[in-house]
Amino acid sequence: MSTSEPDATPREPAVVLLSGGLDSATCAAIARRAGHDIYALTIDYNQRHRVELDCARALAKSYGARRQVELPVDLSCFGGSALTGHFEVPKDRPADEMSCGIPVTYVPARNTVFLSLALAWAEVLGARHIYIGVNALDYSGYPDCRPEFIEAFETMAAKATRLGVEGKWRLKVHTPLITMTKAEIIRTGLALGIDYAHTWSCYDPTLEGLHCGRCDSCLLRKKGFREAGVPDPTRYALP
Amino acid sequence: MSTSEPDATPREPAVVLLSGGLDSATCAAIARRAGHDIYALTIDYNQRHRVELDCARALAKSYGARRQVELPVDLSCFGGSALTGHFEVPKDRPADEMSCGIPVTYVPARNTVFLSLALAWAEVLGARHIYIGVNALDYSGYPDCRPEFIEAFETMAAKATRLGVEGKWRLKVHTPLITMTKAEIIRTGLALGIDYAHTWSCYDPTLEGLHCGRCDSCLLRKKGFREAGVPDPTRYALP
Repeated sequence: MSTSEPDATPREPAVVLLSGGLDSATCAAIARRAGHDIYALTIDYNQRHRVELDCARALAKSYGARRQVELPVDLSCFGGSALTGHFEVPKDRPADEMSCGIPVTYVPARNTVFLSLALAWAEVLGARHIYIGVNALDYSGYPDCRPEFIEAFETMAAKATRLGVEGKWRLKVHTPLITMTKAEIIRTGLALGIDYAHTWSCYDPTLEGLHCGRCDSCLLRKKGFREAGVPDPTRYALP
Repeated sequence: MSTSEPDATPREPAVVLLSGGLDSATCAAIARRAGHDIYALTIDYNQRHRVELDCARALAKSYGARRQVELPVDLSCFGGSALTGHFEVPKDRPADEMSCGIPVTYVPARNTVFLSLALAWAEVLGARHIYIGVNALDYSGYPDCRPEFIEAFETMAAKATRLGVEGKWRLKVHTPLITMTKAEIIRTGLALGIDYAHTWSCYDPTLEGLHCGRCDSCLLRKKGFREAGVPDPTRYALP
């Protein structure tokens, strides 16, 4: 990112959910470009892919975030998802199978939990903006990546919060990636100066810290770079 | 509680938010009486009043809960509330002042966060019922204790979850205490066999582990027992 240092001028604050993945990195760059001070919220939900958290830290710094909170919330205590170690991460699935139904990598109510935590921070900051890099296209099977869900969350937030009830505040949940293809996301991020080598997508990294190259998330990442027609900087175990 | 042992017959599961306080203890007893298997969710949000967590453990056991999850979610990382140590807990406030406006003990978006976590567990369990002991009367200043908020949360939940989207599931958030006075809550709980000596209300316990007797929560608790016309088993520093 070109904007690597926090500057002195206060801008309107935005809480940005920053996982360290390709999507949230792009989303944060968009929030920064929109002129917000970034308050980066990274949830450590005991995911398999812990290296994502290192990427999130580096990204928060590169965006000149005013603050990063890395909050442990162990969603694995409830079970129910391949991403928290309860099933095998599926590999080598053809694209048509990936886009059909809700995959086992779905973490129950994850975005509801993440947005609720972002809401808590936004209310303390008096911030009216939350950014989340959800995408309805590549993850058509995730119910909490759809615009209907986001709107219902905003409506709920207005009734949940002190500032909302006092009429001083209307939360906007920004989802700039929601209708983009992965290739469009990558092109947008490159134009904003992101180095995608410092982002993480793989659900099931190798012991050597490489992207597996075979899980749904790796397959979508590869396809994205291919379709964007740009070099893929990712180190895959299976290219 | 009379129902102290888990029995073998599976009943319809309910996720019950169990803080260890007087209200949530009563709410859990009502859920149990309604014939549910109890999955007790206790959030350790780094509150000042840690002794509440010990009460929650004892209560979960006494209700024969199928499982208790005690989940650390450090809401104090965002700041903004007396309950997480960011302001002084107010003392000796007259009742009219307590019922006016939103108090500093309000934790931003707390019930949204708690219900979201309950939703995550409910979805994994396939449970259609969540119980939360919110009360709109004694806590008129808390926006997330009002029926409008609860309804908006249910609507959002239907769009947030796999089971909701598939039409197999409609979450019900039960708020049996929402319109009760503290005295009514206490009478209801006593009729269900609760020993309120094993519940905790104080926002600012003494070093000796007594209820301070002076914070809003202690004052409401005392008033509740007085108005219910029953002995108050609580050990207060200032009776």
